[in-house]
Amino acid sequence: MKVLAINCGSSTLKFHLIDMAEEERPSGRERRLAHGIVDRIGGWGTVDFTREGDEPLLETMGVADHGEATRRVLNWLESHGFMEPDGLGAIGHRVVHGGEQLVEPTLIDDKVIDAIEALSNLAPLHNEPSLMAIRATRSALGPAVPMVAIFDTAFHHTMPERAYRYAIPQELAAKHHIRRYGFHGLAHRYMTERYAAITSTPLAEVSLVTLQLGNGCSATAVEGGFPMDTSMGFTPLEGLMMGTRSGDVDPSLAGFLARSEGLDVEEVGGWLNTQSGLLGVSGRTQDMRELLEAECQGDASAALAVEMFCYRVRKYIGAYMAVIGGTDAVVFGGGIGENAPAVRTRICAGMSWCGLILDQDRNSAAMGLEDRISDDDARLHAYVIPVDVNCLRHYRRG
Amino acid sequence: MKVLAINCGSSTLKFHLIDMAEEERPSGRERRLAHGIVDRIGGWGTVDFTREGDEPLLETMGVADHGEATRRVLNWLESHGFMEPDGLGAIGHRVVHGGEQLVEPTLIDDKVIDAIEALSNLAPLHNEPSLMAIRATRSALGPAVPMVAIFDTAFHHTMPERAYRYAIPQELAAKHHIRRYGFHGLAHRYMTERYAAITSTPLAEVSLVTLQLGNGCSATAVEGGFPMDTSMGFTPLEGLMMGTRSGDVDPSLAGFLARSEGLDVEEVGGWLNTQSGLLGVSGRTQDMRELLEAECQGDASAALAVEMFCYRVRKYIGAYMAVIGGTDAVVFGGGIGENAPAVRTRICAGMSWCGLILDQDRNSAAMGLEDRISDDDARLHAYVIPVDVNCLRHYRRG
Repeated sequence: MKVLAINCGSSTLKFHLIDMAEEERPSGRERRLAHGIVDRIGGWGTVDFTREGDEPLLETMGVADHGEATRRVLNWLESHGFMEPDGLGAIGHRVVHGGEQLVEPTLIDDKVIDAIEALSNLAPLHNEPSLMAIRATRSALGPAVPMVAIFDTAFHHTMPERAYRYAIPQELAAKHHIRRYGFHGLAHRYMTERYAAITSTPLAEVSLVTLQLGNGCSATAVEGGFPMDTSMGFTPLEGLMMGTRSGDVDPSLAGFLARSEGLDVEEVGGWLNTQSGLLGVSGRTQDMRELLEAECQGDASAALAVEMFCYRVRKYIGAYMAVIGGTDAVVFGGGIGENAPAVRTRICAGMSWCGLILDQDRNSAAMGLEDRISDDDARLHAYVIPVDVNCLRHYRRG
Repeated sequence: MKVLAINCGSSTLKFHLIDMAEEERPSGRERRLAHGIVDRIGGWGTVDFTREGDEPLLETMGVADHGEATRRVLNWLESHGFMEPDGLGAIGHRVVHGGEQLVEPTLIDDKVIDAIEALSNLAPLHNEPSLMAIRATRSALGPAVPMVAIFDTAFHHTMPERAYRYAIPQELAAKHHIRRYGFHGLAHRYMTERYAAITSTPLAEVSLVTLQLGNGCSATAVEGGFPMDTSMGFTPLEGLMMGTRSGDVDPSLAGFLARSEGLDVEEVGGWLNTQSGLLGVSGRTQDMRELLEAECQGDASAALAVEMFCYRVRKYIGAYMAVIGGTDAVVFGGGIGENAPAVRTRICAGMSWCGLILDQDRNSAAMGLEDRISDDDARLHAYVIPVDVNCLRHYRRG
């Protein structure tokens, strides 16, 4: 059976086409038939589709929205014969916000679509793209192909109350379902389980700080294999500094800006989601590679953006060590976490007080590769565990 | 020369009348002639005034605002002969928000009053009360008595940029002077300098996490005697959970609540400042003593409020250790920090991973007293350093 996994970001759509053979493969992994990404959706987008073993298809074209991106993926799959002989067996959609109710993988019907839509205002950059992809797939393939939604909030659902409550009037929290939900759950879960596997640690004994550092960024404190706290909150805006998102700010800030600029608070929310973070501080780009280059060329704003980014990750590592009473390791995942040794070095700088010392050779070599990057003698280890490719498939097995 | 020090909280006014003799006293401390507090201003208030050596005057009466509270203090001082023979030599006002410009003790004139007023929207609970006290004193005593404003933001003014910047568009930050200012500076400075004195540590070698835990709460990371980061930010709303303030929340929350409740974002800001924190979670009171009692009697909401309060302090201790590369000690000050051993125990629970272990006997005994409360063999020590009474006088000497 062929399964298509679709993962919508705010301006991206990634897919993997997997052959879910009945028999267990020797490697324990399913075979990937194809994968790809549509990037910069909403403008002049890029398409990068690959049939395993072939050269990638690279194209640049206008891609209006995630619905159009989905149709491009389906057309490409069809034109490459992947719909034959018996089409797709199932489709998995990663959905960012499942709210308080949607915590298990869920077969998608109209009621589920309505429920996801109702949660869109909590994750404006994310649930809407997923809904477009869901509708475009349903419209193209009809109701005969089952679709499953997997929620990025699900892993965090068992967090303790002290961590998921906000210190606001509790009748207000109850009325509006306001709590820390947490996101990137698929990634944090994958890093946790994978760490347990590669270090031969029973999951129930795993204490970790997992870092998903991509365009969106989050940290999770894991104890006994379960999340105890996580940096994204009621929405994916809270916590670490991100590509275009502010992360933590003074709670008065949105109101102050709305009043001072004579704007609706929604517009201010738009700034905090799309004009802030690395982009807002550097005034230049949200791309960490470009920022590191600009810093080398003496760009002070780029340097400040990188410094703040690393500094804020370090603060969360410290906070989460305090939450779980120390930790065995810090795990880096996500585009920046996997591919930017210089950022990992700066995050871990000055952490020898708690035993975290990187091995610079191992750190430099671990570019998109799973490896330990800490010194042999470190009391607290650091790992790179690439997430993007594996976590949807892994989750399905879990 | 007699100096009157006035310290306005959101609903309190504290004063100390000090005899600033020219000659240095053997104890190194000035002589306090009288002190007192007007509490629950804005409603049915309580007055508790004491001439040193006498019984306190305790009264309950309506006190409309901080102007009326100030007049009551001045009348009481006059009726007890403190204005004779030569009146007050000077008055010091603690002012919460000095913005980017007001960082030194400043002689108060009309321009300074205007500047403090212009900053009122950044600290709505605090600058306005101080302004009322300043105006009431000026009106009662005339311009002949010099008044000095001492700013609670001043100590934090040298924080590094990585700590005081928010990850928002920088032209917006520059336009509106948006940065982390930090508050409770007098208290954090006092705890830092007093720690250096009692441990005979050169100030330049002092690394601390100082905790001011009162009705307002804040944590500061101190390295080399200087603040490196602090939990209150652009306004005194950010950071730790407080008596009625939420502390950290998702930056989307204010906008979401305004939209969901059909309210102005100002009103939501009012909730976050006055209806949240310990009061909001417990649904009962902001008074830690009452909450600890209620918890003993099985009140689950009170227990959750206390647990969240302690948990969030612990997170900041961890974050700030990561900021300054470990620390020598954690210092507790403020009404809760000085007088609630049970809260200190819970904050420090599970911190043995970093060497912090309390001596429970010393901890229980340190009620409003300066003492070390950690185990003799702890690698990381904890101290109680009472702040309220001393910090204004201390600052004046600094």
